Amino acid sequence: MFEKFRFLTSGESHGKCLTAIIEGLPAGLSIDTDFINSELKRRQQGYGRGDRMNIETDTAEIVSGVRFGKTIGSPVTLVIYNKDYENWQKVMSTKAEDQTDEKAFYTYRPGHADYAGSVKYNRHDLRDILERSSARKTAIEVAVGAVAKLLLKHYGVSCKSTFLQIGQGKNEEEFRAEIDRAKETGDTLGGKFEVIYGRLPVGLGSHVHWDRAIDGRIAQAVMSIPAVKAVSFGNGENAYEITGSNFHDEMFLSDGKITRKTNNAGGVEGGMTNGEDLVVKVVMKPIPTLRTPLKTVDSSDMTETEAHFERSDTCAVEACSVVAEARIACVLANELMLKFPSDSI
Amino acid sequence: MFEKFRFLTSGESHGKCLTAIIEGLPAGLSIDTDFINSELKRRQQGYGRGDRMNIETDTAEIVSGVRFGKTIGSPVTLVIYNKDYENWQKVMSTKAEDQTDEKAFYTYRPGHADYAGSVKYNRHDLRDILERSSARKTAIEVAVGAVAKLLLKHYGVSCKSTFLQIGQGKNEEEFRAEIDRAKETGDTLGGKFEVIYGRLPVGLGSHVHWDRAIDGRIAQAVMSIPAVKAVSFGNGENAYEITGSNFHDEMFLSDGKITRKTNNAGGVEGGMTNGEDLVVKVVMKPIPTLRTPLKTVDSSDMTETEAHFERSDTCAVEACSVVAEARIACVLANELMLKFPSDSI
Amino acid sequence: MFEKFRFLTSGESHGKCLTAIIEGLPAGLSIDTDFINSELKRRQQGYGRGDRMNIETDTAEIVSGVRFGKTIGSPVTLVIYNKDYENWQKVMSTKAEDQTDEKAFYTYRPGHADYAGSVKYNRHDLRDILERSSARKTAIEVAVGAVAKLLLKHYGVSCKSTFLQIGQGKNEEEFRAEIDRAKETGDTLGGKFEVIYGRLPVGLGSHVHWDRAIDGRIAQAVMSIPAVKAVSFGNGENAYEITGSNFHDEMFLSDGKITRKTNNAGGVEGGMTNGEDLVVKVVMKPIPTLRTPLKTVDSSDMTETEAHFERSDTCAVEACSVVAEARIACVLANELMLKFPSDSI
Amino acid sequence: MFEKFRFLTSGESHGKCLTAIIEGLPAGLSIDTDFINSELKRRQQGYGRGDRMNIETDTAEIVSGVRFGKTIGSPVTLVIYNKDYENWQKVMSTKAEDQTDEKAFYTYRPGHADYAGSVKYNRHDLRDILERSSARKTAIEVAVGAVAKLLLKHYGVSCKSTFLQIGQGKNEEEFRAEIDRAKETGDTLGGKFEVIYGRLPVGLGSHVHWDRAIDGRIAQAVMSIPAVKAVSFGNGENAYEITGSNFHDEMFLSDGKITRKTNNAGGVEGGMTNGEDLVVKVVMKPIPTLRTPLKTVDSSDMTETEAHFERSDTCAVEACSVVAEARIACVLANELMLKFPSDSI
Repeated sequence: MFEKFRFLTSGESHGKCLTAIIEGLPAGLSIDTDFINSELKRRQQGYGRGDRMNIETDTAEIVSGVRFGKTIGSPVTLVIYNKDYENWQKVMSTKAEDQTDEKAFYTYRPGHADYAGSVKYNRHDLRDILERSSARKTAIEVAVGAVAKLLLKHYGVSCKSTFLQIGQGKNEEEFRAEIDRAKETGDTLGGKFEVIYGRLPVGLGSHVHWDRAIDGRIAQAVMSIPAVKAVSFGNGENAYEITGSNFHDEMFLSDGKITRKTNNAGGVEGGMTNGEDLVVKVVMKPIPTLRTPLKTVDSSDMTETEAHFERSDTCAVEACSVVAEARIACVLANELMLKFPSDSI
Repeated sequence: MFEKFRFLTSGESHGKCLTAIIEGLPAGLSIDTDFINSELKRRQQGYGRGDRMNIETDTAEIVSGVRFGKTIGSPVTLVIYNKDYENWQKVMSTKAEDQTDEKAFYTYRPGHADYAGSVKYNRHDLRDILERSSARKTAIEVAVGAVAKLLLKHYGVSCKSTFLQIGQGKNEEEFRAEIDRAKETGDTLGGKFEVIYGRLPVGLGSHVHWDRAIDGRIAQAVMSIPAVKAVSFGNGENAYEITGSNFHDEMFLSDGKITRKTNNAGGVEGGMTNGEDLVVKVVMKPIPTLRTPLKTVDSSDMTETEAHFERSDTCAVEACSVVAEARIACVLANELMLKFPSDSI
Repeated sequence: MFEKFRFLTSGESHGKCLTAIIEGLPAGLSIDTDFINSELKRRQQGYGRGDRMNIETDTAEIVSGVRFGKTIGSPVTLVIYNKDYENWQKVMSTKAEDQTDEKAFYTYRPGHADYAGSVKYNRHDLRDILERSSARKTAIEVAVGAVAKLLLKHYGVSCKSTFLQIGQGKNEEEFRAEIDRAKETGDTLGGKFEVIYGRLPVGLGSHVHWDRAIDGRIAQAVMSIPAVKAVSFGNGENAYEITGSNFHDEMFLSDGKITRKTNNAGGVEGGMTNGEDLVVKVVMKPIPTLRTPLKTVDSSDMTETEAHFERSDTCAVEACSVVAEARIACVLANELMLKFPSDSI
Repeated sequence: MFEKFRFLTSGESHGKCLTAIIEGLPAGLSIDTDFINSELKRRQQGYGRGDRMNIETDTAEIVSGVRFGKTIGSPVTLVIYNKDYENWQKVMSTKAEDQTDEKAFYTYRPGHADYAGSVKYNRHDLRDILERSSARKTAIEVAVGAVAKLLLKHYGVSCKSTFLQIGQGKNEEEFRAEIDRAKETGDTLGGKFEVIYGRLPVGLGSHVHWDRAIDGRIAQAVMSIPAVKAVSFGNGENAYEITGSNFHDEMFLSDGKITRKTNNAGGVEGGMTNGEDLVVKVVMKPIPTLRTPLKTVDSSDMTETEAHFERSDTCAVEACSVVAEARIACVLANELMLKFPSDSI
């Protein structure tokens, strides 16, 4: 499918930096770096985060595509330097002569890319895989999404996220209690949340070819977040137990305009936005690195062992919701750029 | 992202035919048209289907890309002729001089593309939208998926679907009772099912860039089926209430090979297949055309009215599962063609 | 790169039909089938064509995407049936049980895809390759290009082609003499021509990323015509022997508007249209099937032999120019659709 | 079309740095930074270059995707810092508060993107366009191409370029005389050269669909170099005046293998490599910035004026040939990665 808003990202968890190049933006878009950095900060916050988050405050540097605060049409490059790189320079060196076994890693961690990635790319030291598969790379995706959000704002689109459930907890207080309990037992938690984009024009996406459906494109963008295991629209997760007469959102007139009293469809009909709020529900799995070790296999000698413990987050649902917002923003920005003449704004 | 298995489909619900062109297949692949037609038949079956399904038995004709039963490397064209076209020739004519208001359609049907599509494409007669947004077009997608499945079979991959829930029903008998009840009241039902692909190689997809994640690509393929509102992997829909120590699939050794006792991940870790069964759970919404009419708006005079009743299916979960299988097959075929040298097989 | 005007084509030279699906067209575009067929006719004409052209008068049938003479947003399918298929049904059968050696072909023809294609796709009977590599497939590309031209016309764009040289001939009379002479000796000829698109808006294409440059995209579209071996813009083919002060097109004002007295750049600066005529020069190689046989190799027993003689065109420059026009039209249509809001026109 | 070797580049001529992200490389490829830097140096050399080239010695830094000298499967990021950035920090600042008119630029330079770019992107200060359209950006493309060349080397592919003509000069001595003469008169020169890739496997590209033809893809890659105005294969530029019996490369046997005595086709038949040397001929236009000023228009007040003089190269054919090599390398690398299983090497 065509991508007018296209981008590539790169960078390893402990490498020098994360980088993104965004190609296709119109000229004249104001780029508010404070907003980008506030999004990066949101990603690092949330109850249940461990210590690593405290030492790193991510900020994005723009090194191309913007002049005097506005895009000029050329590709925008975003860089997030790793504050901790000094300590990893040797282990993450690009130079052949620096080869070392220090911090080499051989134990497959269940729930991670370690096993499949090392088979696919034929890597012995699993660090070659985990450095890229790490959730760390979502930081630069949030920066890209923040740029997309600036375009959405230009067109008046709104965005918010709400947490629905963590463990058995269904409100803020219960969330904290669930997280505290998991932390005590050295366990981890995921969660369910929804992202809502409002004031979108009618007709983003299309019914005419499957790969243009906006719900499909959003599902891809969100499901490819490593921690995400379920995506649904509106009341879609329960659609199997509701009859048609109760599920479909009837249409009424109010001051000559179409209105609805329900939004079970989550703002998407026939692969297009229908003018109602776009409601995307997401389930994040529990963090796969836990203090309570999981049984696994050591790839260096193919023996059974227990998975390493490397970091100490208990729950990262807030970060996940920021990443999901960012990815959806990219899909919507692309659609808006196709809808409106977009060489300059 | 690169697509080695690429295709376009076309055709309106009551047009002359549905067509698909598949480009990128290796030469030498045996094309079993009986298999393609049996898949088309599966799509038309299932308890709860109405009368239209009985009069049409879809068969696909291959008009290019295959010679003496095998692909020759050039694009494969599949055509499904509409058996009922004779009665629609006038209404669906491509010629300007045939313009008619017969069967013109002005009432937005909730749950369909009618409203968003007519706004987007600026169409007055909603038939211009509904003819393409109709589920009828999934027939040709099933044919494309059947070709993809032939490639998967060549590599030893297996496929099956299981129905999980329809209404409150959780087994075959209960499904039928639910459907009978809905039918009596002029209502419709959706359902929940899972598609399982087995014996896949480890490492399809990738963790290195978000748009290569296999779960994301499958989620797009399935969520873009108009009737689908929720997609999840393995036990993903419940991942918000399970702790990490209970969710992640521990790894063991058996005869020197990696084994697992659970498959909560549904066969995907880090955006790659991990050697376990690929388990995709799908929720289909109830059919939006029902005998019990929904409140809506007439676009011709912008007055409130009730939605038309056009067809009589009560439940089409079986068809939906066949379409989901087909779409997933296309994603997997693409990955297998990237993995294996694929100019000929 | 994004493609808003995207299409796939299929079909073998002696197969049942050639097919194309075009996806992405705006709704409301008038589709004049007479124009499409007149383009197909242009492709079949020209001094120097042999007998096959006489028996086939190609016409395109539209089987989807158009209703009452206008596009409706859904994919447009074009079909050109092979008038001669009856005689080839057995040799080109898709069915395994029809396998035959009749018309099997084992002698590599220099200048054709036979050798490379059979190595790549591992085909024994070269007919599996030559049926698709045949120039016959350009008929459906001309039909696709005709649809693109209808969009260009909507935006006021003009198109014409001029023949520059055939052999040593530089005008109509000399062309005919050259062709007559070649025909007598059983030889073939190519030629040089230019395609000119006028009244294009300034700024199609872009300087910001290499794959968006309009000259690059046009060069790909034209050079991929099997018979084309050289492509240049404006006076580009001679640019190596002209100094900068003589080559670059100075800018003047006339009634407050930019004007130029020269167009050595052929209407492209910095990868964008600059408001002058877009001038694409093309060199077509001589037809590789000739009565004077070429030395070659028989693939069935790997012995030296002479190439078969199958058809009798002496020169097909006119056809080639029509195909080049068509391909350029597709590139320009895509750019116009990106420039203008294009869900409906 | 699928791109397995995909990349984006960014950076302005006087910005902080040029950046490229390459996605899709197999793991295990040795990355020789000395080779990358030697390619960058080649781009800066050649008789006829002015002073700017002397102060900048480009070197690429790898900041992701490589560990201990080898790729690890994740995206590779290349950065070339601008040695002169300190002097441009203010003029090229990304910050709104630094806005300045210093070095603002209003005179359209014929032969450049200035006019079309400023119209397209609605820019007042032409610097917003020229900073990206500058040939400076080809430096990072050469770095990307160098990585592609490392992959080609792994598969045994060879590469060289030869200069064919500059002005009327046809050998090294005459080239220098032509350049000296142009320099004296304040004029500039282009040139004609050929790039030859050898030892390629048979069958890269394909005849089955137009956008897979290798000659088309190479033509795009080369023609999109801003200075290039003509591209041809083998003896293609003269194919209009040679008869078929003299043009097509006859095939013979030598020790049971296919050989040819000529290579007029330049190694491409039917859109595929045919085992002969791939010979791409390229015409570069003269540098459009010259001491002898060109007549043009001042965009700030729309009056006729003369074009600015900014740099002092007389001829940059050597640089252009290095860029052409690089771009072709990217196309070939992609094809090799599709041909061979390429997750690791």
